[in-house]
Amino acid sequence: MKLKVYADRMSQPSRAVLIFCKVTGIDFEEIKVELSKRQQLSSEFKEINPMGKVPAIVDGRFKLFESHAILIYLSCAFPGVPDHWYPADLFRRAKIHSVLDWHHSNLRRGAATYILNAVLAPAFGRSLNPQAAAEAEKILSLSLSTIENVWLKGNGRFLLGGFKPSIADLSMVCEIMQLLDEKDRRRILGPHKKVQQWIESTRSATSPHFHEVHNILFKAKTKFQVQRSVHANSETESSLKTTISSKM
Amino acid sequence: MKLKVYADRMSQPSRAVLIFCKVTGIDFEEIKVELSKRQQLSSEFKEINPMGKVPAIVDGRFKLFESHAILIYLSCAFPGVPDHWYPADLFRRAKIHSVLDWHHSNLRRGAATYILNAVLAPAFGRSLNPQAAAEAEKILSLSLSTIENVWLKGNGRFLLGGFKPSIADLSMVCEIMQLLDEKDRRRILGPHKKVQQWIESTRSATSPHFHEVHNILFKAKTKFQVQRSVHANSETESSLKTTISSKM
Repeated sequence: MKLKVYADRMSQPSRAVLIFCKVTGIDFEEIKVELSKRQQLSSEFKEINPMGKVPAIVDGRFKLFESHAILIYLSCAFPGVPDHWYPADLFRRAKIHSVLDWHHSNLRRGAATYILNAVLAPAFGRSLNPQAAAEAEKILSLSLSTIENVWLKGNGRFLLGGFKPSIADLSMVCEIMQLLDEKDRRRILGPHKKVQQWIESTRSATSPHFHEVHNILFKAKTKFQVQRSVHANSETESSLKTTISSKM
Repeated sequence: MKLKVYADRMSQPSRAVLIFCKVTGIDFEEIKVELSKRQQLSSEFKEINPMGKVPAIVDGRFKLFESHAILIYLSCAFPGVPDHWYPADLFRRAKIHSVLDWHHSNLRRGAATYILNAVLAPAFGRSLNPQAAAEAEKILSLSLSTIENVWLKGNGRFLLGGFKPSIADLSMVCEIMQLLDEKDRRRILGPHKKVQQWIESTRSATSPHFHEVHNILFKAKTKFQVQRSVHANSETESSLKTTISSKM
């Protein structure tokens, strides 16, 4: 029975798992769980992942969720996966675990919170929150500095001085790809040349799948930019009203 | 050369690593890094962990940080460690990765943020923040419900239906042990009988090391309770002042 990957390409960890399966030639079926239709909360999907989140996989009778755990499982369960994705070497593997753990409370926390409050909130019926976005941007920028100064130290083009990508490169680059807006990218990624090169190296090492899986996001860019500018305008109007009323 | 564990017993992931080494009989040297003296930020320690956090280990020429990565490394690098801590079986191991990943953004986020804002803030020269504590308590309570309904499902006394503890049990129970205050424990842990039994099972499976390593925390309890009641009194005074001044 073919591996089933439950995913929404709008979700960054879903994209990491899909790209991984495609680039390593794992035979799988992609099953769309549309977050915008709240399909992840259906009782049917909760049989697969009780947390109601994507991605999740079903491999025969085995069910699994959490993208890092999935990437590790796939690397070990499918014999054809090249070693560089999740090295068998004890020390290199330990370092990859360390980066993946770090990712949760740093890069992911910064990037996901920023995107939610600066871009996605209206899609969930909430207002944009510039203050929360600004705080998240600080965590994100600090995380990018750490990637540049700690994780990208060494001669290789990838994390931990690697010459080929690991699951950590893929997971973290997919996280950063959420930054779609050109102004955001220039401001946030601009100061981090090594991070930019690393994104490019990861994209190129997983081509053409990287672009194909991200395509939905590139298409959504225009929509989010319109939403953001509508919100910015209504913010200006409301702050104008506040200024006027406070002067009354 | 003996394994070196850099730790502060006041830190929950430090305690997990120390208990693990003791209970599995790993020969190691504990090197104290006092967080209250900001020793984790010294240039000497940053040579070991550039993130300036505990725990970290040095095993010969190999350095590693992030407690989950350390627990996995130790389980694999020391041949005498019993299999139940980090099973070789592909499927059981994958499930343990899934719980450990989940821990970061759920139980840890709730517990650590709650403790910081409800108890520890004054130790870092900050004020307690009851609103942030209340929000964190919601995440913490939701995480405890998930542990009870998802992770503790099955016949065993441990996570994932296990009959013996894994590194995930140890890591997560140490996180919860931060809840020292009796009122906090009654209110937050009270509704979760299975969680209480699981804490007791983990404590008993790692006895006497669990108690010995937590001892510093039990001793700190009185100090924190005094700080908290002083803060509560000054809060009352200041809210009284606000009430009075708003009536003037």
